[in-house]
Amino acid sequence: MPVIADAKRGDIASTAEAYAQALFRRLRLRCRTVNPYLGTDSLAPFLERADKGVFVLCRTSNAGGADLQALAVTGDGQRRPLYEAVAELARDRWNEHGNVGLVVGATFPGELGRIRQMCPRLPFLLPGVGAQGGDVAAAVRNALDEDGAGFIINSSRQILYASSDRDYAQAARRAAEALRDEINRHREAALAERAARG
Amino acid sequence: MPVIADAKRGDIASTAEAYAQALFRRLRLRCRTVNPYLGTDSLAPFLERADKGVFVLCRTSNAGGADLQALAVTGDGQRRPLYEAVAELARDRWNEHGNVGLVVGATFPGELGRIRQMCPRLPFLLPGVGAQGGDVAAAVRNALDEDGAGFIINSSRQILYASSDRDYAQAARRAAEALRDEINRHREAALAERAARG
Repeated sequence: MPVIADAKRGDIASTAEAYAQALFRRLRLRCRTVNPYLGTDSLAPFLERADKGVFVLCRTSNAGGADLQALAVTGDGQRRPLYEAVAELARDRWNEHGNVGLVVGATFPGELGRIRQMCPRLPFLLPGVGAQGGDVAAAVRNALDEDGAGFIINSSRQILYASSDRDYAQAARRAAEALRDEINRHREAALAERAARG
Repeated sequence: MPVIADAKRGDIASTAEAYAQALFRRLRLRCRTVNPYLGTDSLAPFLERADKGVFVLCRTSNAGGADLQALAVTGDGQRRPLYEAVAELARDRWNEHGNVGLVVGATFPGELGRIRQMCPRLPFLLPGVGAQGGDVAAAVRNALDEDGAGFIINSSRQILYASSDRDYAQAARRAAEALRDEINRHREAALAERAARG
């Protein structure tokens, strides 16, 4: 089972290299999340490991994410929110080895759909359902790529804390399976709708 | 001796609260660095501990920092780099308890001087001298506040790796003392110049 370390690291290259060693080599994790604020050279130690995945924070699921991520950035004759500039960097500059994805909050389905339009081929990691209140149906509909896939919905607290009693393991399993079934149901519906549109 | 954890954390509020507990309560550290990309609610668990310091990443010392931090942000009739928008948020919104400072790379003395003009009272943490090549004289001159203080220059590799031999402890001490003396010499010169200007 592939493990994604949602560690959101971001540091200068020498420190990033040490983080990459720790998570990829020592802990043998498959993917990790990174914070783009420090730019390309801070991401390079992760990006250059072509057999490992890197999910770049783009539009995070928390309300305060907009404080920076929604600031209007101008350049190249365009004006757009910062998170779209990050999505473009991820698509055009950081994905040389085809191992880059984006973290986009399921809590903002409109932004999610817009980022999917910009980046039809990048995998998305979608936090924000469950405890954070994101709508699974809207997330699935907006995150689906052309192949009817292309995203991972993660849920932490809803599953981890499904029960604080001795049945916690069974309760966590039930919560995970219920979410899986919900995702698949909405995916089938979205694909059927897409097929009907022709 | 106050200890600053340069951990550059940034996560949603529930996780940020756990990081705050770990670093402030369990490890009893005095200050930490945080990444602003996730916005106000991700910083709140640190900011609200009025007896602890929080240095917000603003203009980092690495070359790639410009990829995001120098993007032109427009709003309120202004156009300025993202790092200035972060400096303003730190000054006007995040510093309610007077415990906020900024991380500004000593490698970019021009930007440093501009941020000091914008934020005359915030303490600065200045990485980038030593292994990263920042000029101590230019950093000191541009970071000094009205009281002739207001900044901490940190140096890691230059001191940690002053020697890889058995004299490493003495070599580290000598490197630290040499940097301290250099900072103080440039500070005296800058203050003398300021006094001469009247």
